[in-house]
Amino acid sequence: MDAAEFRKRGKEMVDYIADYLEKIDERQVFPDVEPGYLRPLIPDCAPQDPESFEDVFKDIEKIIMPGVTHWHSPYFFAYFPAASSFPALLADMLCGGIGCVGFSWAASPACTEMETVMLDWLGKMINLPEEFLAGKDGQGGGVIQGSASEATLISLLAARTKSIRRVQSEKPELTEADIMGRLVAYASDQAHSSVERAALIGGVKIKNVSSDDTFSVCGSALKKVLDEDKASGLIPFFFCATLGTTPCCSFDKLLELGPICNKENIWMHIDAAYAGSAFICPEFRHLLNGVEFADSFNFNPHKWLLVNFDCSAMWVKKRSDLTGAFKLEPLYLQHHHQESGLVTDYRHWQIPLGRRFRSLKLWFVLRMYGVTGLQEHIRKHVRLSHQFEHLVLQDERFEICAEVVLGLVCFRLKGSNELNKALLKSINEAKKIHLVPCHLREKFVLRFAICSRTVESTHIKFAWQHISQLATDLLKTWEQNHHQQ
Amino acid sequence: MDAAEFRKRGKEMVDYIADYLEKIDERQVFPDVEPGYLRPLIPDCAPQDPESFEDVFKDIEKIIMPGVTHWHSPYFFAYFPAASSFPALLADMLCGGIGCVGFSWAASPACTEMETVMLDWLGKMINLPEEFLAGKDGQGGGVIQGSASEATLISLLAARTKSIRRVQSEKPELTEADIMGRLVAYASDQAHSSVERAALIGGVKIKNVSSDDTFSVCGSALKKVLDEDKASGLIPFFFCATLGTTPCCSFDKLLELGPICNKENIWMHIDAAYAGSAFICPEFRHLLNGVEFADSFNFNPHKWLLVNFDCSAMWVKKRSDLTGAFKLEPLYLQHHHQESGLVTDYRHWQIPLGRRFRSLKLWFVLRMYGVTGLQEHIRKHVRLSHQFEHLVLQDERFEICAEVVLGLVCFRLKGSNELNKALLKSINEAKKIHLVPCHLREKFVLRFAICSRTVESTHIKFAWQHISQLATDLLKTWEQNHHQQ
Repeated sequence: MDAAEFRKRGKEMVDYIADYLEKIDERQVFPDVEPGYLRPLIPDCAPQDPESFEDVFKDIEKIIMPGVTHWHSPYFFAYFPAASSFPALLADMLCGGIGCVGFSWAASPACTEMETVMLDWLGKMINLPEEFLAGKDGQGGGVIQGSASEATLISLLAARTKSIRRVQSEKPELTEADIMGRLVAYASDQAHSSVERAALIGGVKIKNVSSDDTFSVCGSALKKVLDEDKASGLIPFFFCATLGTTPCCSFDKLLELGPICNKENIWMHIDAAYAGSAFICPEFRHLLNGVEFADSFNFNPHKWLLVNFDCSAMWVKKRSDLTGAFKLEPLYLQHHHQESGLVTDYRHWQIPLGRRFRSLKLWFVLRMYGVTGLQEHIRKHVRLSHQFEHLVLQDERFEICAEVVLGLVCFRLKGSNELNKALLKSINEAKKIHLVPCHLREKFVLRFAICSRTVESTHIKFAWQHISQLATDLLKTWEQNHHQQ
Repeated sequence: MDAAEFRKRGKEMVDYIADYLEKIDERQVFPDVEPGYLRPLIPDCAPQDPESFEDVFKDIEKIIMPGVTHWHSPYFFAYFPAASSFPALLADMLCGGIGCVGFSWAASPACTEMETVMLDWLGKMINLPEEFLAGKDGQGGGVIQGSASEATLISLLAARTKSIRRVQSEKPELTEADIMGRLVAYASDQAHSSVERAALIGGVKIKNVSSDDTFSVCGSALKKVLDEDKASGLIPFFFCATLGTTPCCSFDKLLELGPICNKENIWMHIDAAYAGSAFICPEFRHLLNGVEFADSFNFNPHKWLLVNFDCSAMWVKKRSDLTGAFKLEPLYLQHHHQESGLVTDYRHWQIPLGRRFRSLKLWFVLRMYGVTGLQEHIRKHVRLSHQFEHLVLQDERFEICAEVVLGLVCFRLKGSNELNKALLKSINEAKKIHLVPCHLREKFVLRFAICSRTVESTHIKFAWQHISQLATDLLKTWEQNHHQQ
């Protein structure tokens, strides 16, 4: 395919994408396919000779679409939102066209510098303390990671290196392996599984800190476990606080936890993967109070800020903590400017070496929506979640299971876990909407997350009427079965 | 921006990208900007109100392009190639449009199943042993990682878990920390820095194995260091073999190394990040002989197989080795089908949780080029590198520093490192072509990598004439200076 054909096919693809997104509500949100559906539909091996674009293009509807879960459907209420917007799609096209690999400043100065400045823009939008910004000569700064999991891992690894060095300087008789064996990381019992995974990867212990009855970790809970662990010779070194937990969007109490971490030489990382985008609205910014105690902070514009995946924004107060943990400089990656102080080589800030020009997405989205446009998007989602909450509360068969703060509603039928599992099964088998569950303590709970950019009040009403009707049907047979037993 | 405007702007962007790539040879390959160039060109913070697409669009040439290193210019001979092709750009547009996050089968069945099948296609193209393929009920299979660094890390972590379990079952008195402190990974002294980094992240020791005078690791070199380390109580557990090293594209001797690793219970990972694409040509496939001894294998279609970044293909013989190292199953990620055996949840195979629908790029590229089209691309690059080698060899002021096997030529002026540093400096300051250096033992060497999809014989001739002229100019002043001193 040459440039001339790309002009033609690219425009067809633009129209296909526009059609897909404009009429996505007409597609069934969750596919009908069974595992293994795809393999029989395509050949066993790659063709020897080139096929035409037409042949490939017609297979999109035939082979791909029947197996797609439509994350941007206004009937998709599962997980958390995956951001999507037209400006981000345009920026990603440009990113692909330029196709640079920005592992160092010299490998593409625009790629690196735009990222630093966009992370400053974004940091200012959520009123992040000055220390986290790169500015012209700051010690902090931001970076785009692929996912919150990587941000957590990177911060844990930086904390590990820092702690090992500190302990070794205090107790030179300890080997690195001795120290590693005594390091302990902490996170809420509500924290994302990626925190436990980061500790597994880093080869250090991790312990849950009990959350309170609002599913938040408070200072006294952390203090208790720290005291026990220190008494038994362990070395607490890392705490991952969560703002907006995955199960129910609860918030750890930063203002209590931060001072403890600072006093105990514990790196505090804040994972606000979903909730972070809301902090661009002044009325939600208070949820971030206490960030000034943190060493690193992360949220995902690719969840809720209309920037397509992947774009996970991470900031640190001291960039040398990250680069000090990893810096390796083979000759083929060195360049003339690297010691100048103005230069950021982002490969030292992340797990992979290569990186795409992802900041273009931020640049396009922030400019074409403006802060006010993005605030409107967040506020609409929060309004819709409260609408759903209100509908649930009016039906006394149901209960709300956690405070609705942002765009997630946790709810269930009053009754057994089995009953609620049956309700979720009937919802997801009907495939008119799509939800996923969570556990809150011993309770099986349904999560209703406002996800799509185009979801409106009518979709919420439809979803509730549908759930309510399925509950009525279910309760009828359920009670019969229970009477019979 | 609504769908209607996206149709218009998307088509403008398609034309812009086509224009950019068609006329990329008219742009200076390396930018003139100095560090910090971008910040003064744009506002301090994001705009409150939306800006128009026109305003953003005109800033691409004004703000972005002056700072871009043009990786797809036919005058770019630095690092290794970054793949780019029109079919891959089209697929990436579709990937963005669908915008699913495929961390589990249920999160988007097509995303997962296409990836499994495409990795089987690709595995067959390089004649990978059957054990590495997923097939219908294989124990192996492939996955798309973001980069070779991640593939190395994942395999090292899987090997670490496996070794700790094995040692613990043999010597239950050892703690995990004891074992971790004695584990050692190995790689060639020519291996990529990401291998050392993987060991740093995994908290295990790593040692260099000396390469021979062809920059390859042979069996006896590995055997020697293993024997020493075992005698001193260490536990060798991981060897990363390289096919196509970054400095000079040398090849470790798999047929000698593999049996040693198998006998010693050492996980052998093969990093063929650059060279792997060449194995689709029968005449280069012998370079992969010995892969049958490996536990995991990786190469980057995003380097040399016309699939835009990111698409790093990784295979394992036993998928349970990867998933066993990481599997964590919170309720919100569980789904109905996951225990069926047919289902792959790729989140257990990688560091991040989220993932894009990257297999679309493989599907488009493999079909629209066909195997023969991709073979032609590889063969053209190899032909051009031999053309350059031939030009160097005809000039007795220069020497070739390593065997030219694929698309990389390592060369230098006969003489001091300072002389060659000066030559590279004059080449990169002239900015007509762009190269990076490497060290081969004590020698400072220039790397000439065939990179662009559109590079032709005329560009090679131009590059050589240019280098040759700069060398003539340099040698004139250099000799004068040396006479004066």
